[in-house]
Amino acid sequence: LNRRGGPIGVFDSGVGGLTVLKTLRSALPAERFIYLGDTARVPYGTKSAASVVKYSLQCADALIVRGIRCLVVACNTASAFALDALRLRYPEIPIIGVIEPGAAAAVSASRTGHIAVIGTEGTIAGGAYQAAIHRLNGRARVTAQACSLFVAMAEEGWIDGPVAEAVARRYLEPIFGAGWGGAGRGAAVTAVIVPPTVLEPPQPAVPDTLVLGCTHFPVLHAAIRAVLPAHVRIVDSAATVASAVAGELALPAQPPDGGGVIWLATDGAARFARVSGIFLGTALRADEIEIIDL
Amino acid sequence: LNRRGGPIGVFDSGVGGLTVLKTLRSALPAERFIYLGDTARVPYGTKSAASVVKYSLQCADALIVRGIRCLVVACNTASAFALDALRLRYPEIPIIGVIEPGAAAAVSASRTGHIAVIGTEGTIAGGAYQAAIHRLNGRARVTAQACSLFVAMAEEGWIDGPVAEAVARRYLEPIFGAGWGGAGRGAAVTAVIVPPTVLEPPQPAVPDTLVLGCTHFPVLHAAIRAVLPAHVRIVDSAATVASAVAGELALPAQPPDGGGVIWLATDGAARFARVSGIFLGTALRADEIEIIDL
Repeated sequence: LNRRGGPIGVFDSGVGGLTVLKTLRSALPAERFIYLGDTARVPYGTKSAASVVKYSLQCADALIVRGIRCLVVACNTASAFALDALRLRYPEIPIIGVIEPGAAAAVSASRTGHIAVIGTEGTIAGGAYQAAIHRLNGRARVTAQACSLFVAMAEEGWIDGPVAEAVARRYLEPIFGAGWGGAGRGAAVTAVIVPPTVLEPPQPAVPDTLVLGCTHFPVLHAAIRAVLPAHVRIVDSAATVASAVAGELALPAQPPDGGGVIWLATDGAARFARVSGIFLGTALRADEIEIIDL
Repeated sequence: LNRRGGPIGVFDSGVGGLTVLKTLRSALPAERFIYLGDTARVPYGTKSAASVVKYSLQCADALIVRGIRCLVVACNTASAFALDALRLRYPEIPIIGVIEPGAAAAVSASRTGHIAVIGTEGTIAGGAYQAAIHRLNGRARVTAQACSLFVAMAEEGWIDGPVAEAVARRYLEPIFGAGWGGAGRGAAVTAVIVPPTVLEPPQPAVPDTLVLGCTHFPVLHAAIRAVLPAHVRIVDSAATVASAVAGELALPAQPPDGGGVIWLATDGAARFARVSGIFLGTALRADEIEIIDL
């Protein structure tokens, strides 16, 4: 199989990876993509490592037979558990996860070396972000927090407003402290923000950087921003994944045909189409989505 | 296989059915039970009908080979989609879902005939509650609402307090109106409650009965109660399922051996054990749970 000029394969447990796909399409508009959402087995975030590896290999198999020349694992849980197994099975193509680019972006963004990571239960319990950040900065301090409700909230379309902020506050206040911005609390209490340059690494009490360690979370950006101290930087790995993919592709698409996406899912085309609008900006039609059996 | 004296099989997509099991054990303390949580494929509530039927048959198969003499489908989504297929495959044992008993309890509880039902996307979209209620009372009016976030909230253990009430209010206020009880709104505005006896059937604007059409929801009872008008009755199908099961069992357990439960799951014993405490009152140990492959 000659993979030159083949599409870029992108898979996720469901719809969350669409945030990564959206960024990839903006960065690489001439490329063709195949997106696979494993909606029959979503979510991966509460499943065991062994199940996530099995499902990820099945997703990769389905994309490989469709001739992809590069694989993007647009799911943090799958990136945390299955990247080694995927690279072992398919050494011939570049395989890019979301965790290493996200960790690199966080280490670049943080001035103090104290980085917070939020994700699904599986991603956080697996510790892959913590390990990836420490490989890049051995003195970094990482505060990690599972935010399970964010996934359901994103898929429900409750992406801003008082409920989204109340949920974000409950998860993030223990990490960043109370009394910062957000609805119902008035303006951000800027007088008590210690300028980042005064803090010396390592390890001030409050992180200065927050990594969105789940591809669902970027759609909740406004609600998360509203409850964070103003100086905290939010890192979304999607942007850095796009540049990692561009770096891996020695050859551009041959021939460039104006791009486009083939949409695959393993269950529920109607729901996938409806929810896709939250993550892509424009909703797909159900008849654009091919259901495959894994 | 002689099924007399065999255990009662109970399955759910995950941990939600534990609320039904808890009630069954209280009502039938001498019985032995096998509980199967299909945690590898949870949730069923966002999956297609075809997938839910396939998974439900696999769960039933696993329980049947273990000698059960009665099957309880302790999942509203599976009850909505798979009951006919299950009864066709296993005509020799009684199979009890949660929807018919829940609908019967709601029709008994409602004075006005206007009944609200909340559940997962799958249960609500499938319309099984609506149909079951109408079979019992052709003049009933049913207002149905999917409450997807309730499942994640219950599993996170956020079962009361301001976030749980804010989420409950967002789902339920459009049905029952604003200005009722709940934190942050002061006492219930009892002055504007129209006495139920003044309302004549059929179809006042606000339902007088709310069916918890998902086995996760009973643990959220306090938060739901807090945002409802005081006269609205909450129907939890678990209690009526227990009496339906007792009615089906012509023979009591032979011999009565003090009861007990065998715990099965399809993934993630550690998480199952941890979350079980929310639904059972006491958490299981991970080594009490056998993982099976379906």
